[in-house]
Amino acid sequence: MFYVAAILICLSVAHTGGTHLLNPRFPRPKGPALKPQYSYDTKYFTQPVDHFSFTRTDTFDQRYLINMKYFEGTGGPIFLYTGNEGDITMFCDNTGFMWDIAPKFKALVVFAEHRYYGESMPYGKDSYKDPEHLGYLTAEQALADFARLITHLKASIPGAADSPVVAFGGSYGGMLAAWFRMKYPSSVIGSLAASAPVWQFEGLTPCGSSYSIITEDFQKGSPGCETYIHKSWDLLTQMGQTAAGREKLSSMFSLCSPLNTTTDVATMSSWLLSTWFNLAMVNYPYPASFLEPLPGWPVKEVCSLITASSNVLEGIAAGAMLYYNYTGQAPCLNIEESAVSSLGDLGWSFQFCSEMAMPSCTDGVHDMFPLQPWNLTTYISQCKSTWKVTPRPYWILQQFGGKNITAASNIIFSNGLLDPWSAGGVMESLSDSLVAITIADGAHHLDLRSSNPADPQSVIEAREQEVQIIREWLQDYYSSL
Amino acid sequence: MFYVAAILICLSVAHTGGTHLLNPRFPRPKGPALKPQYSYDTKYFTQPVDHFSFTRTDTFDQRYLINMKYFEGTGGPIFLYTGNEGDITMFCDNTGFMWDIAPKFKALVVFAEHRYYGESMPYGKDSYKDPEHLGYLTAEQALADFARLITHLKASIPGAADSPVVAFGGSYGGMLAAWFRMKYPSSVIGSLAASAPVWQFEGLTPCGSSYSIITEDFQKGSPGCETYIHKSWDLLTQMGQTAAGREKLSSMFSLCSPLNTTTDVATMSSWLLSTWFNLAMVNYPYPASFLEPLPGWPVKEVCSLITASSNVLEGIAAGAMLYYNYTGQAPCLNIEESAVSSLGDLGWSFQFCSEMAMPSCTDGVHDMFPLQPWNLTTYISQCKSTWKVTPRPYWILQQFGGKNITAASNIIFSNGLLDPWSAGGVMESLSDSLVAITIADGAHHLDLRSSNPADPQSVIEAREQEVQIIREWLQDYYSSL
Repeated sequence: MFYVAAILICLSVAHTGGTHLLNPRFPRPKGPALKPQYSYDTKYFTQPVDHFSFTRTDTFDQRYLINMKYFEGTGGPIFLYTGNEGDITMFCDNTGFMWDIAPKFKALVVFAEHRYYGESMPYGKDSYKDPEHLGYLTAEQALADFARLITHLKASIPGAADSPVVAFGGSYGGMLAAWFRMKYPSSVIGSLAASAPVWQFEGLTPCGSSYSIITEDFQKGSPGCETYIHKSWDLLTQMGQTAAGREKLSSMFSLCSPLNTTTDVATMSSWLLSTWFNLAMVNYPYPASFLEPLPGWPVKEVCSLITASSNVLEGIAAGAMLYYNYTGQAPCLNIEESAVSSLGDLGWSFQFCSEMAMPSCTDGVHDMFPLQPWNLTTYISQCKSTWKVTPRPYWILQQFGGKNITAASNIIFSNGLLDPWSAGGVMESLSDSLVAITIADGAHHLDLRSSNPADPQSVIEAREQEVQIIREWLQDYYSSL
Repeated sequence: MFYVAAILICLSVAHTGGTHLLNPRFPRPKGPALKPQYSYDTKYFTQPVDHFSFTRTDTFDQRYLINMKYFEGTGGPIFLYTGNEGDITMFCDNTGFMWDIAPKFKALVVFAEHRYYGESMPYGKDSYKDPEHLGYLTAEQALADFARLITHLKASIPGAADSPVVAFGGSYGGMLAAWFRMKYPSSVIGSLAASAPVWQFEGLTPCGSSYSIITEDFQKGSPGCETYIHKSWDLLTQMGQTAAGREKLSSMFSLCSPLNTTTDVATMSSWLLSTWFNLAMVNYPYPASFLEPLPGWPVKEVCSLITASSNVLEGIAAGAMLYYNYTGQAPCLNIEESAVSSLGDLGWSFQFCSEMAMPSCTDGVHDMFPLQPWNLTTYISQCKSTWKVTPRPYWILQQFGGKNITAASNIIFSNGLLDPWSAGGVMESLSDSLVAITIADGAHHLDLRSSNPADPQSVIEAREQEVQIIREWLQDYYSSL
């Protein structure tokens, strides 16, 4: 694990250096949802490490979670969650929509873990050792895992041989769900790609769009909130110039480790930026614990604190405190926390540096953030030095068609208008069977969460439409038999 | 090259052993077509050896041939031949159809070489050294090469940025053309897959079907011809039991190397079987030189000689002589010739042993051949011992959908009814845009050859239909802009 630790340090440095590039991460749930624990069996399926060449014969066990309670056999549907960058049990616990509708559809429920996350490590503790071991962490390999797993399930589960499979995924998992239907239409009859920024790639979407959305979210949360945040960056930098200022900031924000240098202050600035990004993603209408335990409509709550303060930085500190310490359990705030802090984040950092080159930038004009341009050359050189890999920033466009995807069919692209990632999503239907659903009051894949009394009408309607479309896919499938 | 030579010997042994498995190869043209030499520039494009992982940074130069004579820029079409298992110049010279229609369409013509063939060697002379070097010889990697090449062409050729691309391919190249449209629909608006046995895989097509078609071909060539051939195998084996018999056979067939053992006789038997398979594939209506220089309707010519003889084996010898020595240039016949004899054949042998597990068998009841069953276990163990790779006999089904391909669009599957490989082809249209065209008097991808005064009406009509469909694809594309 020494190498992993070294990488962590290395990334932190890269984050705080002068040529810092934004690399917002998708939210990965850190723990089970507040309420439910769904029941499932944990199983494993042996996969080749490399599906696309024959240079090696290595295999690994992919974990998947399965629930057969509602499945009545005889060709009933299989609902497959295409796991994203994290422990699959967390996605399982936080994707209540599948659990809510499975009984109606008498569906077999499967959550498939993404290679190199959770327990699905191709080379055990050496998986992250070097590019030789880690290089098989790609979306294409993960999709091939899903295809082989489906064949295995159909072949081994009584009554499932002719079962139609519907894929579900949120965030990067939603991108995988969409791409899975595009690349393996014989494996899945359709996919629900929730909050999937499939167009957040070079040349397809302006790099700053998601930050404009966050800014709007905060403006809506409490008018003027975005102005306070906009002002905070310079104030923070100014106060951070002196030892006395840094001491004051450390105390004001109850930091676990005091700020010792201006580099620490820059790290704090990045941490705050990530905090607001994360907060916008999980701006759910009811108390939830996806990233952190939070109240309902947390952006509004945080903004109330920010705008109520007569001192900008004190307001910001109160807002950060609410985000990180809503339950009162955190004795102090850790500015390293939103940075790379787990294998899940580490894996995504590698994916970002290899094929998931998703440009991100801020300009302080169209958004409330400090200027941080996107620079492809910097990105490539930083990735080379961090991961010893050469990114392929255009490959995803070639592999999955960029904006030219109308040859595909049976994909629902759902996006919440509050979600920063909706900027890179498919926001308008592209054909009768490539359907965009927008959720006015939705943050990041709200529709995939279980139903809640506080659900706004827009997500209720979105889910109804999704169920209706899935029903039509199934009808088409069964009538074609 | 020592290793290559060792493999060649190894394969020959496998071919003549008791557990011999049929592995008919697609015809690869051995030289330029009789008449034309088309003009083109030869270029190279740098490709990653591995598109789907990041374990290495190796690259190689893919060769492609390009003709810009008819292209008038401003978004005119690109006709791309998706190269198969051999030197691309040979496919270029033998795919006259593309050259015939390119002027009408004002098309840019490109022939892209398949990795590990011709000059497109990922590791130079070490490319075939071991699985570590050779393992990147897969269809998926080849398709990715084509996709990246298209992006490069569009980006670098003035007026081609918005050019629609139509893919063409015959035989394995036809399989690639079809799969290319399935997997990369944003790269090509449609594909003509000529004589592409995309369903000649485990469980999709009976393994003996192509041999039944050959038998019918010979029966049509001259009634009773198939009976002579059917009888020949036992006679050959019997005569080959004794030294005197082998001497007589060696003389009768003008063999370059005399038959010394019964193993040699078994090799000769395999050679004859391949000879009839090859002859059926190139049973063109006019003199052609695809595999060997041959007269028009060569099956008929060969069968005339076979049935005219009062002695079965003498008739067979006369038929073989016509096939291998029509021009009178061959001083003797070489029974190793139809076996692995070039890197092209070697490459296909590897592909057959890794992912292109295309079952093949004879039973002597539904065909005129000796009994040779298909045995998956034997296949796997032979491939392991020959190539040190473990075949994935079901992978192509999972990767490309098996018979469940109706989610795809804009593919023409053309097949000649005389062609043995039509057994594994798509013989009926699957939808409005997955169109099957059958050519009653066509052998292996006759439609891809240049027009000829001796063309039967069926191929003339097939080509007209193909041109019409391509025109519709282009119209749809331009009207969507």
